[in-house]
Amino acid sequence: MSAVSSGRYSRQNFILLLLIILQLDLHTVEGVWPLPQDFTRSTERYPLNPQAFHFGYGKQSVVQQGCSVLDAAFKRYFSLIFPDYTSDNLSVSEKKAFLNAETVWGAVKGLETFSQLVYQDDFGSYFVNKTVMEDFPRFQFRGILLDTSRHYLPVQTILKTLDAMAYNKFNVFHWHIVDDPSFPYQSRTFPSLSSKGAFHPMTHIYTQSDVRRVISYARLRGIRVLPEFDSPGHTDSWGKGQSDLLTPCFRRGTPSGSFGPVNPALPSTYQFMARLFKEVSSVFPDSYIHLGGDEVDFSCWKSNPYVRTFMHKMGFGVDFKKLQAFYMENIMNITSALNKTSIVWQDVFDYHERRSSLSVVEVWRQGCYLCEVRKVAKAGIRVILASPWYLDQPGPTRNWAHYYTVWPLAFKGTEEQKKLVIGGEVCMWGEYVDATNLTPRLWPRASAAAERLWSDEKQTSSLDKAFPRLQDFRCKLVRRGIQAEPLYIGHCKHEYQDV
Amino acid sequence: MSAVSSGRYSRQNFILLLLIILQLDLHTVEGVWPLPQDFTRSTERYPLNPQAFHFGYGKQSVVQQGCSVLDAAFKRYFSLIFPDYTSDNLSVSEKKAFLNAETVWGAVKGLETFSQLVYQDDFGSYFVNKTVMEDFPRFQFRGILLDTSRHYLPVQTILKTLDAMAYNKFNVFHWHIVDDPSFPYQSRTFPSLSSKGAFHPMTHIYTQSDVRRVISYARLRGIRVLPEFDSPGHTDSWGKGQSDLLTPCFRRGTPSGSFGPVNPALPSTYQFMARLFKEVSSVFPDSYIHLGGDEVDFSCWKSNPYVRTFMHKMGFGVDFKKLQAFYMENIMNITSALNKTSIVWQDVFDYHERRSSLSVVEVWRQGCYLCEVRKVAKAGIRVILASPWYLDQPGPTRNWAHYYTVWPLAFKGTEEQKKLVIGGEVCMWGEYVDATNLTPRLWPRASAAAERLWSDEKQTSSLDKAFPRLQDFRCKLVRRGIQAEPLYIGHCKHEYQDV
Repeated sequence: MSAVSSGRYSRQNFILLLLIILQLDLHTVEGVWPLPQDFTRSTERYPLNPQAFHFGYGKQSVVQQGCSVLDAAFKRYFSLIFPDYTSDNLSVSEKKAFLNAETVWGAVKGLETFSQLVYQDDFGSYFVNKTVMEDFPRFQFRGILLDTSRHYLPVQTILKTLDAMAYNKFNVFHWHIVDDPSFPYQSRTFPSLSSKGAFHPMTHIYTQSDVRRVISYARLRGIRVLPEFDSPGHTDSWGKGQSDLLTPCFRRGTPSGSFGPVNPALPSTYQFMARLFKEVSSVFPDSYIHLGGDEVDFSCWKSNPYVRTFMHKMGFGVDFKKLQAFYMENIMNITSALNKTSIVWQDVFDYHERRSSLSVVEVWRQGCYLCEVRKVAKAGIRVILASPWYLDQPGPTRNWAHYYTVWPLAFKGTEEQKKLVIGGEVCMWGEYVDATNLTPRLWPRASAAAERLWSDEKQTSSLDKAFPRLQDFRCKLVRRGIQAEPLYIGHCKHEYQDV
Repeated sequence: MSAVSSGRYSRQNFILLLLIILQLDLHTVEGVWPLPQDFTRSTERYPLNPQAFHFGYGKQSVVQQGCSVLDAAFKRYFSLIFPDYTSDNLSVSEKKAFLNAETVWGAVKGLETFSQLVYQDDFGSYFVNKTVMEDFPRFQFRGILLDTSRHYLPVQTILKTLDAMAYNKFNVFHWHIVDDPSFPYQSRTFPSLSSKGAFHPMTHIYTQSDVRRVISYARLRGIRVLPEFDSPGHTDSWGKGQSDLLTPCFRRGTPSGSFGPVNPALPSTYQFMARLFKEVSSVFPDSYIHLGGDEVDFSCWKSNPYVRTFMHKMGFGVDFKKLQAFYMENIMNITSALNKTSIVWQDVFDYHERRSSLSVVEVWRQGCYLCEVRKVAKAGIRVILASPWYLDQPGPTRNWAHYYTVWPLAFKGTEEQKKLVIGGEVCMWGEYVDATNLTPRLWPRASAAAERLWSDEKQTSSLDKAFPRLQDFRCKLVRRGIQAEPLYIGHCKHEYQDV
């Protein structure tokens, strides 16, 4: 199934038919989050008998048993639908439910929706209302960034986040895997990067097998893994395991002993990067790669006489933006030769003169972010919006409303330009976040972004309507073992239990 | 051991001598949190052999084996000191450590300190430096309030919090057990209060056995349980299971169908309260009881003609503060007849004319809280300070500094008046907090308050000095399974592992 690594859900002409034995009472029925595009639910309800319930492939389906993604999803969703199934005495209904999807990934999301339609009455019996639904995402890119450099996140924590992402129909895990404080990625080609640059060379690293496990776990849930190897800034930890990579800073004509961004003046830098990205490109199968490019501090470059000589030779004068653009061009050439589409932070767009060489720009700065979205779209470049969804800052859960009332297309532009906004991303930076507080800080606030990115804007503009549905969904997350924090006073039928 | 319920640690004239086989390298030694009063640590270190290590009672000790509190503490602290003990080959040292304490509760705290002095080298061997220490708390009342009405907290979550409290040397669990949203306390005398007033009559209640378990668990850790049954306001949930308790509100001369605070005009109110508090006083052995008395909205009382008639009869005119004072006097008479010392929120002090009848006032309002502390102390009444430690509001972990730089005695007053400030309390209200986010929201920010309440102010006035010690202590909490959030970029040797 290459669709997960194709970068977009390809609209292949096959149809999946999934048979689901059905069931339903409109007043006791909880909602679906994110809200489906089209949705008619009757009050007619059907009981579901866990002993007789099964998923199956329709006769006309182009995929059949043996499709690993759906076989695994069937098993997973059976447990999610019947969380306390032991045995039951419901009457078997002969009814069937049909799920048509163009891709297996669409089918996986359909199973998630179906699982949210099932409810239990006070006696524990399962029901589903008669429902007709058509659904598709508003934006194709719905991401969550985790930062595993400022704090190391155990693999188990990442997998748990992938579970919660699937429940919210997020489809991109943006893995900000390395940064200044630590380099936990264990490279085959350059093992010193993690053995010297990680917080601990054995316990605080991601081995090749860890990375494969994350990618495979994500893939089964319809989630792509987008790796970010941010440079030339944010690379302090790289320098520990790779000498001559970072720029030596000078003070009064002599090296000060401290180092700045990657040294863009040395050919060895690009040889190193070519080898590193060759490895990264094969380890991470996604067709996209994030190259960072944000927040480059020019002062160290300025202090270094060899960098200044190089600038002169290249005809950059004293314009260090040109130097940064030159560096990024080189990196983008390396990755495009590896058949990867590159994503960069907005800084690269802002400083770049040959903007046409950019593929996708991620807007992250606060302030008038829609002004920036508009600029990028006007330049004909695809945009991902992150600014309004910086969730790493702690805040009251009630500020979910801030993340919900975001209108990514509310800028002046043509239809063509608006289509260039391919989606958005929740950013969970790691200064104050590790495995102890990631989950309650992320959920359910990220769910607000999830609905904004999936659902129709007109149907989801009311906070008052969204609130009870989100409260209910948050309880569903808790029931599924996700430590999602409460929105306000109240309770869930099944509270989170400490262990 | 009645000291736990005596309200204060009585200074009995007995001496405990605990023998501990000792061990230490000043540079690798981590600190102790909260900081002991007097502390001399040499660089001389002793290895600790878990196979030969034991705690014991000194010959001169007035308590010996069979003291349930210390026998249990020995067992607990052995596991805390040797977290990954399996077997070891260290040489046995003949050295002994002595712990002299006036009370078993002091000994329990000494064990906590000792456990923080032990560290492991890179090979996993245990060491302790030669150390001489004298320690005692600056304030006798060091509390944490948990609110189990706005969200229900499972018993397991409360026990885990008691563990973390013991590690921080907190000694009072203020159990704000009921409030407007729900009444989870299952009363023997009035079972309807929880069967009708809890979020769920079976799953969201504290049975008598739950309460006993919490009290006994707390007691073994040197923590008193201070129950709060807040009235006459904050009682919506009481009205569901007890008719005629709350005041019917009137609109245009007829009952509106809604209810206000407890009805102070009916004799049946006081009969009910006498029976309830009689039960509560026997269930909770602590000599203190918290009676609330905060935030009473007078509008419903004002609307009710029967209440107004009662006011007239009592000679209160239209001064509803007098009515509230009358109500509180009655409740305080009930509890003092039950040999309980009552604590009230500052509102009662502010509105009360006969202030001399008050025992302990808890200051909680924001603004110039030291002005209020001063007023209460000038009136000769004991004070507990809570205002600066409202931790339920989410905030960056870095704002631990706000909770650390609090100077409870920085008001103009005599030495006698300052002695009336018996301590402080961290408040964790439940609007946005339940078992999913309680722990990372509480720890390590509450640790800042813990040190302020325990340690010498002069020795702990520097944030820069406290920061690395607090970071280290936070890692200790994580190692002990407490989901304490990170203070800033970095790592712990043993990270929190999701389960």
